[in-house]
Amino acid sequence: MATPRIKELRRVYGFDEVAIVPGEVTVNPELVSTDFPIDGITLKTPVLASAMDAVGSPKFAGEMSELGGLGVMNLEGVQARYDDPDEILNQIVTTPQDEVTGLLQKLYSAPVRHELVGERVEEVKRNGAACAVSVTPAKTKELAPVAAEAGADMIVVQSTVTTARHISNSARGLRFPELLEMLNVPVIVGNCVGYDVALELMETGIHGVLVGVGPGAACTTREVTGVGVPQVSATIDCAAARDEFYDRTGRYVPIITDGGIRTGGDLCKAFACGADAVMLGTPLAQSEEAPGKGYNWGMANPHPALPRGTRVKVGINGSLEEILYGPTSVTDGTQNLMGALQVCMGMIGAQTIQEMHEAEVVVAPSIKTEGKHYQLGME
Amino acid sequence: MATPRIKELRRVYGFDEVAIVPGEVTVNPELVSTDFPIDGITLKTPVLASAMDAVGSPKFAGEMSELGGLGVMNLEGVQARYDDPDEILNQIVTTPQDEVTGLLQKLYSAPVRHELVGERVEEVKRNGAACAVSVTPAKTKELAPVAAEAGADMIVVQSTVTTARHISNSARGLRFPELLEMLNVPVIVGNCVGYDVALELMETGIHGVLVGVGPGAACTTREVTGVGVPQVSATIDCAAARDEFYDRTGRYVPIITDGGIRTGGDLCKAFACGADAVMLGTPLAQSEEAPGKGYNWGMANPHPALPRGTRVKVGINGSLEEILYGPTSVTDGTQNLMGALQVCMGMIGAQTIQEMHEAEVVVAPSIKTEGKHYQLGME
Amino acid sequence: MATPRIKELRRVYGFDEVAIVPGEVTVNPELVSTDFPIDGITLKTPVLASAMDAVGSPKFAGEMSELGGLGVMNLEGVQARYDDPDEILNQIVTTPQDEVTGLLQKLYSAPVRHELVGERVEEVKRNGAACAVSVTPAKTKELAPVAAEAGADMIVVQSTVTTARHISNSARGLRFPELLEMLNVPVIVGNCVGYDVALELMETGIHGVLVGVGPGAACTTREVTGVGVPQVSATIDCAAARDEFYDRTGRYVPIITDGGIRTGGDLCKAFACGADAVMLGTPLAQSEEAPGKGYNWGMANPHPALPRGTRVKVGINGSLEEILYGPTSVTDGTQNLMGALQVCMGMIGAQTIQEMHEAEVVVAPSIKTEGKHYQLGME
Amino acid sequence: MATPRIKELRRVYGFDEVAIVPGEVTVNPELVSTDFPIDGITLKTPVLASAMDAVGSPKFAGEMSELGGLGVMNLEGVQARYDDPDEILNQIVTTPQDEVTGLLQKLYSAPVRHELVGERVEEVKRNGAACAVSVTPAKTKELAPVAAEAGADMIVVQSTVTTARHISNSARGLRFPELLEMLNVPVIVGNCVGYDVALELMETGIHGVLVGVGPGAACTTREVTGVGVPQVSATIDCAAARDEFYDRTGRYVPIITDGGIRTGGDLCKAFACGADAVMLGTPLAQSEEAPGKGYNWGMANPHPALPRGTRVKVGINGSLEEILYGPTSVTDGTQNLMGALQVCMGMIGAQTIQEMHEAEVVVAPSIKTEGKHYQLGME
Repeated sequence: MATPRIKELRRVYGFDEVAIVPGEVTVNPELVSTDFPIDGITLKTPVLASAMDAVGSPKFAGEMSELGGLGVMNLEGVQARYDDPDEILNQIVTTPQDEVTGLLQKLYSAPVRHELVGERVEEVKRNGAACAVSVTPAKTKELAPVAAEAGADMIVVQSTVTTARHISNSARGLRFPELLEMLNVPVIVGNCVGYDVALELMETGIHGVLVGVGPGAACTTREVTGVGVPQVSATIDCAAARDEFYDRTGRYVPIITDGGIRTGGDLCKAFACGADAVMLGTPLAQSEEAPGKGYNWGMANPHPALPRGTRVKVGINGSLEEILYGPTSVTDGTQNLMGALQVCMGMIGAQTIQEMHEAEVVVAPSIKTEGKHYQLGME
Repeated sequence: MATPRIKELRRVYGFDEVAIVPGEVTVNPELVSTDFPIDGITLKTPVLASAMDAVGSPKFAGEMSELGGLGVMNLEGVQARYDDPDEILNQIVTTPQDEVTGLLQKLYSAPVRHELVGERVEEVKRNGAACAVSVTPAKTKELAPVAAEAGADMIVVQSTVTTARHISNSARGLRFPELLEMLNVPVIVGNCVGYDVALELMETGIHGVLVGVGPGAACTTREVTGVGVPQVSATIDCAAARDEFYDRTGRYVPIITDGGIRTGGDLCKAFACGADAVMLGTPLAQSEEAPGKGYNWGMANPHPALPRGTRVKVGINGSLEEILYGPTSVTDGTQNLMGALQVCMGMIGAQTIQEMHEAEVVVAPSIKTEGKHYQLGME
Repeated sequence: MATPRIKELRRVYGFDEVAIVPGEVTVNPELVSTDFPIDGITLKTPVLASAMDAVGSPKFAGEMSELGGLGVMNLEGVQARYDDPDEILNQIVTTPQDEVTGLLQKLYSAPVRHELVGERVEEVKRNGAACAVSVTPAKTKELAPVAAEAGADMIVVQSTVTTARHISNSARGLRFPELLEMLNVPVIVGNCVGYDVALELMETGIHGVLVGVGPGAACTTREVTGVGVPQVSATIDCAAARDEFYDRTGRYVPIITDGGIRTGGDLCKAFACGADAVMLGTPLAQSEEAPGKGYNWGMANPHPALPRGTRVKVGINGSLEEILYGPTSVTDGTQNLMGALQVCMGMIGAQTIQEMHEAEVVVAPSIKTEGKHYQLGME
Repeated sequence: MATPRIKELRRVYGFDEVAIVPGEVTVNPELVSTDFPIDGITLKTPVLASAMDAVGSPKFAGEMSELGGLGVMNLEGVQARYDDPDEILNQIVTTPQDEVTGLLQKLYSAPVRHELVGERVEEVKRNGAACAVSVTPAKTKELAPVAAEAGADMIVVQSTVTTARHISNSARGLRFPELLEMLNVPVIVGNCVGYDVALELMETGIHGVLVGVGPGAACTTREVTGVGVPQVSATIDCAAARDEFYDRTGRYVPIITDGGIRTGGDLCKAFACGADAVMLGTPLAQSEEAPGKGYNWGMANPHPALPRGTRVKVGINGSLEEILYGPTSVTDGTQNLMGALQVCMGMIGAQTIQEMHEAEVVVAPSIKTEGKHYQLGME
């Protein structure tokens, strides 16, 4: 009898399951650099805000910029649909929980207006920040040129899953090489998770890749559709694609781990797994400055027939500066994320993010947060 | 010293432990087909209702049919034992929990009546639906001809574990080739879980295989007898048998994953693991139309000496249409199961169920439902 | 640099982590035999009661015998230390929980009296039962001859860990070949867990091996000393030793899985892993007939300086007959253990315990008891 | 296409995941020796107290010494910063929980005073104990000579992660060979976790290695920075380095497992994995004699910008003698740790700590502490 062709299942990993191993050399944290260069722009803080309305206002983009990071405005969110987005945001955060999915479904069915796209881009620029905007593949050919025209510095083409090849009925779908020719700003594309998909996207000429599909512990995309890959494995695979592509072509296309990062520990693990930068939602939505005022909601939530996720109360944890750079008296890893990164780099012996990619990562039993514990030593 | 012959233990997997990896190509969900052809019948909705009394009335079979699926009536349930099954169902759902196992043991000891079998089959047909009936192996030679005579379109021969070879004291036990000769309707047989068993069943000439023994997280068969195989591995193994049998004979015998599916995510994983269709109990028992009125109970529960499982309150979740096709504002994966399947196929890049069998499936850490989360992107 | 000699860790398994796979053939449960032959005695019910005072009275031994099993009386328990053991048992079960460890330490420091050993053995015999007695290695040379003289049919030499070789200061320690020469009754020895240890014990000429050290989920021996091996792996390893020893010598030395069995599922798994019989504590202590009256406590608990475990309230679950042979309306696997074994053998296609040793066992995700579920099919 | 260079993740283990397998020989516990020789000193009790203020007073060092162990005084803790450390300790243990991190940040910013270092060392010696002192690498060149001058018997150079090579801006950083030349007392260095790092540290000539970075279930270093390796794997790796170094050079550099040990079981596992001694924090902080009076806090907690951990209420469990040597009526493994070690050695058949390193260790499912259980047998 022939050998049965049993489908084989690879084991993949999420943040909670891994830990970083200290290095053979240690470095004083004051000597490390966390610079993230991407196509002419260099962010001192390798953190992008998620393209979600709770952290996506022009004002918040200015605040991210002041701290060395980058905001991303969603061109299909409330900013580009409403004259007075603050009023809409206020409705969203004040509606009772059991009515909010319906409200989101209704609010996000208002049309996107081109003139608002232009106005908001200019508003970001007036705040002194680089302007990154996000758009779904289906709307890219319509909206990306509008934003670029208005002065956007970076276009993020983003949906839950994006590939270089998409099958649809439309006569001429989105083709990345054509898009790049049309625009003269860097284009980041995502989200993806696999080695082959990431490589294929890089081959289209784009400038960065967003990594992450249904990450995190209780991701609704995975609950609803079964689809999702935990971030540690997703990042490792896409980093391997980046390195392979660089070896072959000499072009370095950075990858940005997007989703599932809640603590300094998660953030450090993303870099140790190969990320060049990270995209944060909830941790930034917890800042006093966030337009979500202690709430967060995703852009797949308002789907009219199959919403995935809902409005989540994330609370307010501190100022954006405390969250990114401290100082802090909080000991749960949710503040001073960049301080944590620097201390981690010191223990690993990495002076740059790229050296951090060489760190050893191990699969370690999950952290049980109910345990009581304390720390030894003092650096 | 000789090498000890230590028994080796293979690792098997359930729905909660795996996730589907997005494909290298994506497809617009409107372009996918979920057709399930089986021996001349084609279901637009590849979903069978479990052969349990809580979802097994002639009326419910009609409602399943209208939505493109298939109901299955249990010939050893209340429909074929009582003149007024609704009255009996009412007793079952109104009895206090601590008395219900005893009640089930009593109610299911009433005799099955041939004339009621015929009447119920005709009732299903009058509702405009294809009529599938379920019977245990021990009763098959007695009841299957009665149902076929009355016009049944499909016979499901089902017990917790069914094999092609059964050892008993009876002079002439059930032999599937003989049964098939006697009846001229398609015969589905189950349940089974292994590659060899599935292959051997297919070799008898039957038309479909039900997959699943003691699946799910808290299966009582496994608690009581230790026997059970989680559905991901069971489906993968039986799908390999189907493919092997098809390669060898040119006959495609579909497999139907039966049990343990609670959400859209589970359903999508069953197909990604190789299922041609699924059989659903609890998700359909949660519909407003279900005769169980918010309760469910299995057919092994009334066992007079060793009941496995009891009546479970499953609640009412929405209309059958909302559960199968939405639209929905619910975000936990329990509604719009077919919408979820279509979105999943889009992310995988599968245009048919058979293409979905090629999806990569990974072992990913269990979902912890207490976590809070939200979604990025928008397709 | 030389390869580092990193200690390697083998993965071992417990009952909750495995499941039994149905067989390629099924058997009618009425056709199976559960006989357990051991050195001339044949138990129809392959179940020994643990040598603990909560299930170890002469009267309980009689009740076990009537149902086809075997009671074991501990010669270092209250039966052999006190004229009126019932009065002592009453003290133990009525003392408040926070005083009970101290009380056990005190009560079990009274001397063992030879004349009581003889009286109790005769009492068991008067109840019409075979008399098995248990004694620790340190007391074996003193007490085993007394019991044998009084008519004991089987000697169980038992401590937490017993090996064929023990290092101590005593001039002449226990040697099993000498013991066997001295006594002319079968000798069972334990507990052990490894292939080599089991083989070495069998080579001394003893008649059976008890398997299990620190099994179960919350074993205190493991908490206190770190020592313990889960029962699935322990049973598999010792079964391999038995088979190896049989192949080499033609002598079949049965193994008895002792500890950690709570449900019918656990019991079935022990046999599928290679057990010839099982020893049960808590499940029998939950019978109405047990002298522990709803409590249980181990024989290492009274250790004067390092008690491991305490008195546990196990509750009363039913009559001994209901627990072993049903019938039952309970659906959690704690009643009708032998019925469950017969149904399991039917699904596996095993007509004898030895055929059951051939069953496939898989590693399956743990059962989460909070899940709701139900059963399909009906045998 | 080239094979992708996917980062590989090794599985590592913590105490809760492993168990010790009994040996082929057993030994009477009265015959075992737990001696720990280190550079001329021999501890009868192979236990060091953590260099934390809650267990680090001169008085407590005297009490550790009387029981055969060794206290370690932190030269950067309250003892060397304040004239009246008891008054400061009192402040720490009486401040409300939500203010304590801030208070620790403030109190630990007071300067370390050389004259107090000398006074405290002399105080330890007056209590009749060997005096071990702890200092961070950055302060070693300043404070270690002061302590050695005052009569310290052992210097512990300790930070969260210490390597033989450290990159900093300081003109002349700490070099261990230079330090060893300068001092003529044994030097213990830590913490580290890897084979290569341990080997490199041993090659500098130091006398012992502390093993453990971010161990334990809920370690805040791991939560905050992602860095940490569970203790079983860390100990196994460093033990392999020690053995390799010994084979190559003939010098035996003992390793001390530091952190994450809560019960006798954990402690036994550390030795079975290769530890020569253990360092305990919480279990000793739970003694009546501990200066922490039922509280514990680590030395990384007061970090001014990124505290990791906080003050933990550990409670008082018994006298130091009960915790180390019993007797006890407690059955959860938190008392009579050395009695547990002796019983464990008996079951393993190890007469010395070095023989214990040969024990088999297995990966076994985690202990669920809610389960009820009891013990069989009696040694």
